[in-house]
Amino acid sequence: MIVSALLTSVGINLGLCVLFFVLYSILRKQPGNIKFYAPRLVAEGRARQRSEFNIESLLPSPGWVRKALEPSEEDLLASCGLDAVVFMRILIFSLRVFSVAAVVGICILLPVNYLGDQLRDIDFSDLPNKSLDLFSISNVKDGSNRLWFHFSAAYLITGVVCFLLYFEYKNISEKRLAYFNASKPQAHHFTVLVRDIPKHEGGSLSDTVERFFMEYYPSTYLSHVVVHRTNKLRGLITDAENLYRRLAHLKSRPATSQNNCCGSFLGLFQKKVDLAGHYAKKLEDLEENVRTEQLAREEVPAAFVCFKSRYGAATALHIRQSLKPTEWVTEEAPEPQDVYWPFFSTSFMQRWMSKVVVLVASVLLIVVFLIIVAFVQGLTYLDQLEIWLPFLKKVLTITVVSQVITGYLPSLILHFVSSYVPSIMKLFSTMQGYIAHSEIEKSACYKMLLFTIWILFFANVLTGSVTSQLQIILDPKNIPSRLAVVVPAQASFFIAYVVTSWTSLSSELTRMIPLIVDLITRNCSRCKSDELQIPSIRYHSEIPRLLAFGLLGLVYFILAPLILLFLLVFFCIGYIIYRNQLLNVYLPKYETGGRFWPIVHNSTIFSLILMHIIAIGIFGLKQLPLASSLILPLPVLTLLFNDYCRKRFLPIFQAYSAETLIRKDREDQNDPAKMAEFFDKLVTAYRDPSLMPINHFLNSNERTSPLLFSADG
Amino acid sequence: MIVSALLTSVGINLGLCVLFFVLYSILRKQPGNIKFYAPRLVAEGRARQRSEFNIESLLPSPGWVRKALEPSEEDLLASCGLDAVVFMRILIFSLRVFSVAAVVGICILLPVNYLGDQLRDIDFSDLPNKSLDLFSISNVKDGSNRLWFHFSAAYLITGVVCFLLYFEYKNISEKRLAYFNASKPQAHHFTVLVRDIPKHEGGSLSDTVERFFMEYYPSTYLSHVVVHRTNKLRGLITDAENLYRRLAHLKSRPATSQNNCCGSFLGLFQKKVDLAGHYAKKLEDLEENVRTEQLAREEVPAAFVCFKSRYGAATALHIRQSLKPTEWVTEEAPEPQDVYWPFFSTSFMQRWMSKVVVLVASVLLIVVFLIIVAFVQGLTYLDQLEIWLPFLKKVLTITVVSQVITGYLPSLILHFVSSYVPSIMKLFSTMQGYIAHSEIEKSACYKMLLFTIWILFFANVLTGSVTSQLQIILDPKNIPSRLAVVVPAQASFFIAYVVTSWTSLSSELTRMIPLIVDLITRNCSRCKSDELQIPSIRYHSEIPRLLAFGLLGLVYFILAPLILLFLLVFFCIGYIIYRNQLLNVYLPKYETGGRFWPIVHNSTIFSLILMHIIAIGIFGLKQLPLASSLILPLPVLTLLFNDYCRKRFLPIFQAYSAETLIRKDREDQNDPAKMAEFFDKLVTAYRDPSLMPINHFLNSNERTSPLLFSADG
Repeated sequence: MIVSALLTSVGINLGLCVLFFVLYSILRKQPGNIKFYAPRLVAEGRARQRSEFNIESLLPSPGWVRKALEPSEEDLLASCGLDAVVFMRILIFSLRVFSVAAVVGICILLPVNYLGDQLRDIDFSDLPNKSLDLFSISNVKDGSNRLWFHFSAAYLITGVVCFLLYFEYKNISEKRLAYFNASKPQAHHFTVLVRDIPKHEGGSLSDTVERFFMEYYPSTYLSHVVVHRTNKLRGLITDAENLYRRLAHLKSRPATSQNNCCGSFLGLFQKKVDLAGHYAKKLEDLEENVRTEQLAREEVPAAFVCFKSRYGAATALHIRQSLKPTEWVTEEAPEPQDVYWPFFSTSFMQRWMSKVVVLVASVLLIVVFLIIVAFVQGLTYLDQLEIWLPFLKKVLTITVVSQVITGYLPSLILHFVSSYVPSIMKLFSTMQGYIAHSEIEKSACYKMLLFTIWILFFANVLTGSVTSQLQIILDPKNIPSRLAVVVPAQASFFIAYVVTSWTSLSSELTRMIPLIVDLITRNCSRCKSDELQIPSIRYHSEIPRLLAFGLLGLVYFILAPLILLFLLVFFCIGYIIYRNQLLNVYLPKYETGGRFWPIVHNSTIFSLILMHIIAIGIFGLKQLPLASSLILPLPVLTLLFNDYCRKRFLPIFQAYSAETLIRKDREDQNDPAKMAEFFDKLVTAYRDPSLMPINHFLNSNERTSPLLFSADG
Repeated sequence: MIVSALLTSVGINLGLCVLFFVLYSILRKQPGNIKFYAPRLVAEGRARQRSEFNIESLLPSPGWVRKALEPSEEDLLASCGLDAVVFMRILIFSLRVFSVAAVVGICILLPVNYLGDQLRDIDFSDLPNKSLDLFSISNVKDGSNRLWFHFSAAYLITGVVCFLLYFEYKNISEKRLAYFNASKPQAHHFTVLVRDIPKHEGGSLSDTVERFFMEYYPSTYLSHVVVHRTNKLRGLITDAENLYRRLAHLKSRPATSQNNCCGSFLGLFQKKVDLAGHYAKKLEDLEENVRTEQLAREEVPAAFVCFKSRYGAATALHIRQSLKPTEWVTEEAPEPQDVYWPFFSTSFMQRWMSKVVVLVASVLLIVVFLIIVAFVQGLTYLDQLEIWLPFLKKVLTITVVSQVITGYLPSLILHFVSSYVPSIMKLFSTMQGYIAHSEIEKSACYKMLLFTIWILFFANVLTGSVTSQLQIILDPKNIPSRLAVVVPAQASFFIAYVVTSWTSLSSELTRMIPLIVDLITRNCSRCKSDELQIPSIRYHSEIPRLLAFGLLGLVYFILAPLILLFLLVFFCIGYIIYRNQLLNVYLPKYETGGRFWPIVHNSTIFSLILMHIIAIGIFGLKQLPLASSLILPLPVLTLLFNDYCRKRFLPIFQAYSAETLIRKDREDQNDPAKMAEFFDKLVTAYRDPSLMPINHFLNSNERTSPLLFSADG
């Protein structure tokens, strides 16, 4: 890619960004749109829909940026929870790292690269037609002493990253503890999930659980809730729910027909009454079915066991319970609203099988994706495209077209296709039988990260079929030199990719898809849908995306420092947008207490090691073997640092310590009345929502949250 | 190697075996030898030294074999502990596996191999000059359907091994639980080792520990013992101990000079008295030094914390104690007599450093060993030896010499050299900072296993320098075919190796080294040394040896089934000898409760997988690709089985369950008097022996056990 193509791409994307920003600032002020742009404020009663239209609202204004940046971290913590804060810390961490990296990269490495004359076509006059390779390490002469700048830069950035990582980890683990200490008694701290309860003849499962815990934990055991198989019931209830909604909608129409667009088909009125009767009959049948099914519910050998203290629950959790290690297996209980009920029915064998299925499916996904990537990859090289599609030759000679195609189109396609992957990964994780939404998203996060690194990096970089890629992996001693050859060559593609990502990030702001979907449904049914849908942030898609850009930045830091500028812009836009969305749009579905951070830490360590491996290769290629071997201590030191962090911080994210738990328990004992009330609630906190009386739901049609059968009712 | 060379080797070794057996049966009946052949019986007062000599004792008798085989497993458990039983189970397990394997191998595979005509020089008349390769899979024609026999055999033996492994694991884990349930209250079940205790200003370490556990475990905390740095003290005490012994020896001489050989140098009597005075003075100084050092002892931030119940100790062990994960780190306490006091002083950093040092040292050891192996390896090929040492040409033409050299010498050298490795490995493990003898030996066991597999198998098989070996490892996709080429070629070497091992095993019986050492010292000092030295079995050298033979057997089962016969003989001899030694010679130094078994299980699984990999390679080489791919499910199924066993049995070996502990605690509560007495003892159980009053030791010169400062005094 040449400089002018890059500039075209930057121009297009910057334009699109500004367009989205302007669009957002206008759209958000329009009447009726508040439910898209500030749904959680509406739900919390902190914002009201404006009905009157005024001309001023058509003028874009930057006030929302100020509002997004204004709240402090404490405000964010109070309103969005610790997970949101941790998410924002990823952006802050990245901004810090890449600010330092950009200063070093642009002020020192870029001039060094540009003034090297390896590529021997320096011509200061014609900058726009220069290849971007002139700004990369490829342009430095082989064996040149200038490479020691790059060498020092590698050490410097590793030091900076480790230093920042340490303090972030420390900071977040302190926040996690503070969050726990400040929290009110929460059901999941007092509860343990027990699986694989052995069957005893004579006596229900519930009796067995009661007997076991009364025997071994007489002083701390409180109560338990046996889990039931409710897959079928869940289906019936969804049907009933839909039917009820449709019926309510039908019934509401005649009454509102005077002042509503829907009342215009008066000729159809009679038909509607028939329909209503039919629906009511069907609904009654369904309700009956649900009640029968609720009575005939089948037990699953699992139970939520509640204890009288957090420490009591922790002892039951950490010590193996039964003589037989495969029985009475204890797990941490998720928050009640975080429980993913459908997958409670899976047995050990089923879970094992689904793991295998998921593995195979993931490999298939990668293969399919590789075909797409191979095509996209080809677009960056126009001549190759001309060979494939000769009829395009004429069109491609037009400068603008060729610049758009090489500079913009490939990354756009990649962005578009990869936007569907997170959902697929989440589906895969769901299949694996996790019992909590948070667990599913965390597992999907890891999957996405692996996928992103593999596809966007290895596959993109190590072009070729899956077999030839496997051969590279199976030949580990050549990996550094192989990477050193192919990674710098892909620099321009990734610069373009980062630039394109500005647009996809800004498009997040305007929430075009729900807006358009709403527009279509509103026009089709010709009736306002008043349901307020509050989305929650998709950590499993957003975190891997940020981390993948972090990986790109670190890997290309010494190879092609130009990328850092564009990355900084990306993270700045990201910081504003995500802050705005977290404060106005997303409602947290669960709270893991910052458990996503270890993923970030591990991924950053991986990026550093990959950078070191490539540095070893590149210094070898550039005929500076001394630098190549002097880099070797760097990965070792990094791994040592990681080892220390694993010992020092990771346990905090895995479980709370005895000290913390006992102190918190003692604090609670000072307020027996509050605790008595809490324990009353705790006993029913883990009831499967689908076992609630059916009327409970059908009569509460004001409820608009996606969790229609929430557990607290 | 040809058949006659093998027969020569078998002859020599069988002869040596019989010789050792005869020698043992005579020597053990000689007066004064009982302290070598039944020291633990003497120590336990179950056997007395016979002083009168009779002619009958010069006749060999097989009575000891019967006596060794007579006691049941319960008797063995009662007298030698669970570890000894587990050790014998390895032999029983191997005997079972290789009995099945031998039947299949000798009755089916061997004829199939022999009747294949790949090597095309079948001549039934001249069996002794046949190469052993005729009995191996190499002789089966490429692509022959007879290879399906080998294929089925691979499935069959995998099934048999997994079946037996499952039942052994089950059996031993049940034994472990039964052993725990039947045990009296033991100090280490009630104790937890706490490390990295933070320093608090104002207040000693002891106060800090007291305060912490009184605060968080008020109901179960009993007492604690802070650990001290006693390296220097330990040296002083050893000096004092030696001096005291020498002095006692000197003093005892004049009194016994009339009826003792030592009294003959009456002219030297005056000199001796002077020497005694000098020694006494020196001893006094040393005692003073010890007392000063004991007072000035330095604290180590570690303590043994005792609890009032096993469950109390388990909760403290399994739940992280402190806010900061690097402080108040809890570990399982070893048995009091199992504590390895010298290494308590190491810090986290020191332990990390010594790990690196040990790694480097291990690599060096392997390199040194490889040079030896390369030489030994050469001996199996006479022609190569002639090239190296041309002057030997004449000698080597003599048939017997060449047969001895090719059939016997290489394995003998290897046996001799490798007999020193376990001690080195134990030294390495000691350096790593383990806190218990049992931990050190377990770690040395793993190291030995890795070393043995690497050297005896990979290095021996994949001949060449370390670099070329690394290249093979770094090129994993060619491993199966590479192994398939070189492994069968080494069959004759390993058959010879197994045959030689008979001798080294039988030599274990006669305990020649202590016998000779005793003979020399007795003649030099011209005075009887009456100290009874009871050795303990060196698990870290014996277990890896047995497992290495198991590996050989499984790997060569389909390649060269001839080896199975010799292996069966090896395990039979081993069964008799080890049983005899465990019952008469070795005194257990510690009791891990069967924790060595998971090592055996893992090693056997590894052997199976290696066998599968080689089978994949060999079927590929033999042009039967269908068989090669049909083997693939076998390693997957084996790993699945292993996964199940890890879930089902391994936790039992890692920690006792709440159910077990609480039940046992409740049982104890029925006998409060016994428990009160036990708790009294518990408080001082973990006192560092070197902090005992110096007189305690010096006045108890009757004590002869190697644990001179035992904790129970």
